[in-house]
Amino acid sequence: MQRNPQLGEDGQLRHLLSIDGLPRDVLVNILDTARSFVSVTEREVKKVPLLRGKSVFNVFFEPSTRTRTTFEIAAKRLSADVINLNVATSSQTKGESLLDTVANLAAMQADMFVVRHASSGAPYLIARHLSQDIHVINAGDGRHAHPTQGLLDVYTIRHFKEDFTKLTVAIVGDLMHSRVARSEIHALTTLGVPEVRVIGPKTLIPPDVQKLGVHVHHDMARGLRGADVVMMLRLQNERMNGALLPSAQEYFKTYGLTPERLLLAKPDAIVMHPGPMNRGVEIDSAVADGRQSVILPQVTFGIAVRMAVMAILAGGG
Amino acid sequence: MQRNPQLGEDGQLRHLLSIDGLPRDVLVNILDTARSFVSVTEREVKKVPLLRGKSVFNVFFEPSTRTRTTFEIAAKRLSADVINLNVATSSQTKGESLLDTVANLAAMQADMFVVRHASSGAPYLIARHLSQDIHVINAGDGRHAHPTQGLLDVYTIRHFKEDFTKLTVAIVGDLMHSRVARSEIHALTTLGVPEVRVIGPKTLIPPDVQKLGVHVHHDMARGLRGADVVMMLRLQNERMNGALLPSAQEYFKTYGLTPERLLLAKPDAIVMHPGPMNRGVEIDSAVADGRQSVILPQVTFGIAVRMAVMAILAGGG
Amino acid sequence: MQRNPQLGEDGQLRHLLSIDGLPRDVLVNILDTARSFVSVTEREVKKVPLLRGKSVFNVFFEPSTRTRTTFEIAAKRLSADVINLNVATSSQTKGESLLDTVANLAAMQADMFVVRHASSGAPYLIARHLSQDIHVINAGDGRHAHPTQGLLDVYTIRHFKEDFTKLTVAIVGDLMHSRVARSEIHALTTLGVPEVRVIGPKTLIPPDVQKLGVHVHHDMARGLRGADVVMMLRLQNERMNGALLPSAQEYFKTYGLTPERLLLAKPDAIVMHPGPMNRGVEIDSAVADGRQSVILPQVTFGIAVRMAVMAILAGGG
Repeated sequence: MQRNPQLGEDGQLRHLLSIDGLPRDVLVNILDTARSFVSVTEREVKKVPLLRGKSVFNVFFEPSTRTRTTFEIAAKRLSADVINLNVATSSQTKGESLLDTVANLAAMQADMFVVRHASSGAPYLIARHLSQDIHVINAGDGRHAHPTQGLLDVYTIRHFKEDFTKLTVAIVGDLMHSRVARSEIHALTTLGVPEVRVIGPKTLIPPDVQKLGVHVHHDMARGLRGADVVMMLRLQNERMNGALLPSAQEYFKTYGLTPERLLLAKPDAIVMHPGPMNRGVEIDSAVADGRQSVILPQVTFGIAVRMAVMAILAGGG
Repeated sequence: MQRNPQLGEDGQLRHLLSIDGLPRDVLVNILDTARSFVSVTEREVKKVPLLRGKSVFNVFFEPSTRTRTTFEIAAKRLSADVINLNVATSSQTKGESLLDTVANLAAMQADMFVVRHASSGAPYLIARHLSQDIHVINAGDGRHAHPTQGLLDVYTIRHFKEDFTKLTVAIVGDLMHSRVARSEIHALTTLGVPEVRVIGPKTLIPPDVQKLGVHVHHDMARGLRGADVVMMLRLQNERMNGALLPSAQEYFKTYGLTPERLLLAKPDAIVMHPGPMNRGVEIDSAVADGRQSVILPQVTFGIAVRMAVMAILAGGG
Repeated sequence: MQRNPQLGEDGQLRHLLSIDGLPRDVLVNILDTARSFVSVTEREVKKVPLLRGKSVFNVFFEPSTRTRTTFEIAAKRLSADVINLNVATSSQTKGESLLDTVANLAAMQADMFVVRHASSGAPYLIARHLSQDIHVINAGDGRHAHPTQGLLDVYTIRHFKEDFTKLTVAIVGDLMHSRVARSEIHALTTLGVPEVRVIGPKTLIPPDVQKLGVHVHHDMARGLRGADVVMMLRLQNERMNGALLPSAQEYFKTYGLTPERLLLAKPDAIVMHPGPMNRGVEIDSAVADGRQSVILPQVTFGIAVRMAVMAILAGGG
């Protein structure tokens, strides 16, 4: 059996490439560590010296200001030196290969790479070619994975709901093009969530998703009934070819989360969204800004989760 | 009466959005605090720990390398963590609203936003939607305000002339498109300057400027006579539609500040310019580089003024 | 005789503009200082406080992510505050002159400028107009110089070969368009290397290179024979007009460094390349990744060399 490339021979986390295949205790350790950092970010001085003198490289082969920012803040609050690199517009255009670019940066004594790439698997390829003491965090690779997003979602659920083993979680929207939904499902299952539902039109639900042990609903009302957690996905307009959906308005009519529809879920259900939101497309503003929305706390917890992952990889967690 | 949105209920500065409406004691406090930072920036180690662990976000919806740089340096000399964001090219293009973008950044536990936006009022809008403990500094919004530029001008005048109450200040050039001129006039008046003159062609002087208590001159010679301070404005070519001025050469002939014209002002008059200069258009090189020019000290004081504003907002001034 | 603009009246290094004209003891001091920083970068906490509170401005009038990154890391490991500026896209477009831009930045109390510019001599021009206590490092100006690249090459040779006075060094490739080759030759000669050879097609070897005391070879085999050091140059496709070379494949056939050809050099010869490599054009992958390649150590030493230059200029070396 092949060893999980994310774990060292001692079972410790060496890279964070995907939530898939992460053992339960590793997941729980990340969540517990993140909790300690939530309190750090609430202090007057929001810094700890855990990564002092370490060099964290944000290597973005595909631009994403928001994601880069979250990692930059996390690293700086751990006192790391942060180097931002948009490689799309630099050495790649000089014809250098991905691996040469990364080997070059590693030779500058990098301690950690935060990698975003349009191609699935690029962070794995990079991780495989680095020496033992350099760590890779996948900040999104194609449609494949975006593990810190998945982790912050799970952290948010645990924060508000505490016990995973009694929850019904409904994931609504474009699962076909979502970087996170699959990993999310895996993490929720691993952490003991008994019922995960996915809701959306046939064109946006991958046919093989049922193999992950989820219940598929094409009817929004039935899917939401009794849910403790409603996770909305972003309708990624830019990824769709137009043939999959009639129109944004039509989508909102059928799958948009309105206050009326939210009444079908449990009264204390929480509403999540990874951002950026398309208000009036997948979510109504009254819900997005409503009392059940935990969309902004997700962002806050996201910083703590990224700090936790970095601290654990650097051996200081 | 509506409360000034820049001031808290205790009268303390909460945001810096415009010089307009700032009470005299608040202005003087900023200038006094800046003076203490001028000496910091002259030291071997140009850092103080006042903002250690604070996160300052430079959120530029409109690019301006020079302005961003001044705030970045100021924040770093206060030991803050600085995050630079060019939002023009990122989430705004994903269709997210201004307020969602900012709410998202605020949820990352930002302490301070330095905002530049092409639309007048954007920093006000942002300030209104943030929680109590997050501060906004306007780094330029449309044609409206650019208060730290105004403050550094006032600081420079006080540094070289000491007593505001005996001064004649002449502001020369494109008042129509100037972000700072109106605020400047307000600040000078508030600080007790008895005579403020504005000089320029009819097409570049707003018709209502006289309401601010200034004297309007269309003749350069008459306007300069006896001035203690000559503030040149940048001729913002990029903002004009071509119909307002015959040509740059023609402008220089009539309103360019030459050594001969400067003789009309007081012998110890100082010459100011916010930069970047159009040499040979609004100002002659012999004046720009001459002994009466305080254009580079303005830049130096600008860092100290920005440090002062940040320190006061963060409660450490 | 004109004083070397890089040296102060006391003979100390004030700017690093070119290796040309640097006295032997200055070169050796940089190499010795770099050696102490190599050990710093291998430590758990890779920082020293030598430049704490200093402001280092990376002013890139021509973009180069890789070069900018190396200086940014070096400065941060010395605890400096680093400001990155891509001036190509900012104030220069507002019509401001190079010297006004730099004077403006200097007035922000910069301590050091790392300058890259497409025009040869730009860093000299800048250095000439700055006050005594501000230092300039040339990070590449046109085809002229790129002294830290030259220094890291010399450092690498000393690291692996120790004694310069017994070496045969072969420089292979496009000397015509190389920023570094000429300076390199000068440095090697100054440090006592008895035989420097340049190898390449007539179209890529400047006719006057023999004046530098090197041996010119157009035959790769004869040039490599008995070499201790083989320095490959990047074939700068983007700089050539197409008329100089038949094709990349043809070039590789005649001047590409293959394992077979490398056998002609000494058995313990080292292979160097400044990167980014064109694999299969100037160098075969088997050589680039082979046991004689020191291409990645060059990168590592490059950080230490840049730290050394900065520390010496700041007076802390």
